[in-house]
Amino acid sequence: MVEGEEGTIGELTEALDSYRDWLDEDPRRADVTLAVTCELVDGVEVEASVGRRHVVKVDEPRRVGGRGTAPNPVNYALAALGSCAAIGFGYWSDLLEIPFDSVQVHVEGDVDPRGTFGFDDETARGFSSVRVMAQIAGPESPERYEELARTVDAHSPLLELFTGHIPVTTSLELID
Amino acid sequence: MVEGEEGTIGELTEALDSYRDWLDEDPRRADVTLAVTCELVDGVEVEASVGRRHVVKVDEPRRVGGRGTAPNPVNYALAALGSCAAIGFGYWSDLLEIPFDSVQVHVEGDVDPRGTFGFDDETARGFSSVRVMAQIAGPESPERYEELARTVDAHSPLLELFTGHIPVTTSLELID
Repeated sequence: MVEGEEGTIGELTEALDSYRDWLDEDPRRADVTLAVTCELVDGVEVEASVGRRHVVKVDEPRRVGGRGTAPNPVNYALAALGSCAAIGFGYWSDLLEIPFDSVQVHVEGDVDPRGTFGFDDETARGFSSVRVMAQIAGPESPERYEELARTVDAHSPLLELFTGHIPVTTSLELID
Repeated sequence: MVEGEEGTIGELTEALDSYRDWLDEDPRRADVTLAVTCELVDGVEVEASVGRRHVVKVDEPRRVGGRGTAPNPVNYALAALGSCAAIGFGYWSDLLEIPFDSVQVHVEGDVDPRGTFGFDDETARGFSSVRVMAQIAGPESPERYEELARTVDAHSPLLELFTGHIPVTTSLELID
């Protein structure tokens, strides 16, 4: 729910209510399998077909032999984590009726490339730590935005994926 | 290493050798922090700025109140996982000198949207299981390709992320 944009207020809640009803009509509809096909097209460039509608390009930086045409997989993982939080703010703002003016989520992930590229098998090959930092602006009290942020975190499938075994910190800053 | 494409053979190995030397010159270079900023721009649409060069669009399907203009975060997570495997085949083919003609990685992830959208707090909010299925074509023996696939899996930062707590199966099929 974005304050002041009439016509969008409550729309997400309405959409989710309809979706829930649709799932309830036939609980098998809740068994969703997402499918992505990744084809190595040139060097280390990949075209990932997501469902039937979207194609995502993936590449590596020039320094490691790619052509730098698109983000690499670890960057996409961070983008997925951060966008999941941002989208969560959108939904839960609407559901909890806690409007805001703007929200931005900065994500940082620490990696040591020596693990990933096999230079050193003692080094972890993924993220050693991750920070998710949300900045929100709006008319509600800090307490309400803390409640919103907690609810967002509690429902994020990407946060669940990351917190499986990587130390992840999340924070919320209320800005002007 | 893609067989028959002269000029690409060994290029990735060469790039990684140079990169390793560059890291060794100053080990602090191996402390890499990746940064992504995700802005909620409209409804549940997000623009994710990855480093300074790339912008990734994220959205939700129409059924749940989005506009369906781009994949959603869980689909991006699967695309990251599958592309990480495909790119790994590219690198390790070159490093281990196991050429192939083509490789495709299909990824499937099972999710129950009732968890993610808060319809049912008893339901897991992320993937309940994930399958990564690679198909490879090329002149080498099945044993060599199995070796290649094992090495790819052992170095994938995204596979490490997923296998933290989600059951993930990986498979390799040699095709004509």
